Amino acid sequence: MTRSELIEQIKSKKNFLCVGLDPDIEKMPKHILNDEDDPIYEFNKKIIDATAPYCVAFKPNTAFYEAYGLNGIESLENTIKYIKQNYPNHFLIADAKRGDIGNTSSMYAKAFFSRLNCDAITVAPYMGSDSVKPFLKFEGKWAIALGLTSNEGAADFQMQKVDGRELYLNVIETCASWGTKDNMMFVVGATKAEMLDAIRKIIPDHFLLVPGVGAQGGSLADVCKHGLTKDIGLLVNSSRGIIYASNGKDFAEKAGAEAKKMADEMAQFVK
Amino acid sequence: MTRSELIEQIKSKKNFLCVGLDPDIEKMPKHILNDEDDPIYEFNKKIIDATAPYCVAFKPNTAFYEAYGLNGIESLENTIKYIKQNYPNHFLIADAKRGDIGNTSSMYAKAFFSRLNCDAITVAPYMGSDSVKPFLKFEGKWAIALGLTSNEGAADFQMQKVDGRELYLNVIETCASWGTKDNMMFVVGATKAEMLDAIRKIIPDHFLLVPGVGAQGGSLADVCKHGLTKDIGLLVNSSRGIIYASNGKDFAEKAGAEAKKMADEMAQFVK
Repeated sequence: MTRSELIEQIKSKKNFLCVGLDPDIEKMPKHILNDEDDPIYEFNKKIIDATAPYCVAFKPNTAFYEAYGLNGIESLENTIKYIKQNYPNHFLIADAKRGDIGNTSSMYAKAFFSRLNCDAITVAPYMGSDSVKPFLKFEGKWAIALGLTSNEGAADFQMQKVDGRELYLNVIETCASWGTKDNMMFVVGATKAEMLDAIRKIIPDHFLLVPGVGAQGGSLADVCKHGLTKDIGLLVNSSRGIIYASNGKDFAEKAGAEAKKMADEMAQFVK
Repeated sequence: MTRSELIEQIKSKKNFLCVGLDPDIEKMPKHILNDEDDPIYEFNKKIIDATAPYCVAFKPNTAFYEAYGLNGIESLENTIKYIKQNYPNHFLIADAKRGDIGNTSSMYAKAFFSRLNCDAITVAPYMGSDSVKPFLKFEGKWAIALGLTSNEGAADFQMQKVDGRELYLNVIETCASWGTKDNMMFVVGATKAEMLDAIRKIIPDHFLLVPGVGAQGGSLADVCKHGLTKDIGLLVNSSRGIIYASNGKDFAEKAGAEAKKMADEMAQFVK
């Protein structure tokens, strides 16, 4: 999906919500576990159908599938196919945080872009240019580099000073120089919204993928205040807050309602 | 596998070689591709059998399996099972470079340690403590954090100065404080052997996983000169140099010969 297509989706749907598909069988409704051959896929399908009208993107986190081995990977592949077939205009992000030496990153890019046909993949920047660039060679595909993450551990390295400013600013500026606003985005946690001012000085136009609203405590209003651009420039993700809104028979309905609530809140920011 | 068991393996086999299992069907012998249902697994089995007498560890890089989808993951799982069944005294590293927020890293740890029973997994440190610590909670299992990698892009961030010294030294010191020499190792590229002096000042006893000898140009003698400890403290990896020593019918024999050559060279350093 190109940048202009993504912006068009956001403007027509009047939201910039990304629903994180992080299935954890310990949190999923019991009746799904008992009833279905592939409970993860069945759970995802219902969540996707219920939330699709209120979001522009889906983001499966690969860890939650890998944890269940071959069956889990099959659930992931089926989920991706389901989204591609039924919701081809939704932006599909593989949250995999991959990154390795050049020839190995190329293998990952092939896996997620050529085979699975995802629109984007999250990448870890620590290994530098040749670990990120292979993801930028696919027409209409995106690398989403970790900039400033939403977790506690972000302080350990990302906020350390390099040449008088925080490492994450350095990482964002350097990664941005390898691609363009048409094939790169950055992960910037909502829990640190005020830091978006400094980030927007470096990358005024790039899209940001923003986790941390909801379960992790970030505020949508703060994120918009500091991060919004004329093209919106934000994909705000919520995972647990939406998909585990209920663990009863009404889980999909409640997830849809939760997504709608966030989408409604976003509408005021989409002119 | 515990630290003392690993040291015992190294001392009895008189080598500290790790064979990297990075199967690429474009480089594999044609007859394997034509003959077999699961060419990756068949290729790996023959490489493993031929090299096992001359190494103490195997390291499949997950990217090379994920690139082939479900079939590839099945090849990976079969390869891991084959090693565990036939060579239970070989140290088994999943080279996956994972790392995510706490609850997600826990899912990865569960996947690689509980399900696949690997001894170790490589982890990316950029997200900090809660992304690494979940891998340290399994008895006899190891997290191998990226310190200084062997690729060109290592210069982009790892060598930037934080408080007057390079970021990778900071990363190694901080990560080391989260675990012990019994459950943490570090990736340090052989292409930067002289930098091992500064690293050994910080972690005199930790094991290092050293890629970059062979195809990437690092020297074994240099690595030993700067990195060896009284307990050896090194696992030196070679992937392409061994597994693609030949792409004819004799590929396994040639891989074995290449591994033996490295093991023989290592023997002088194991007292």
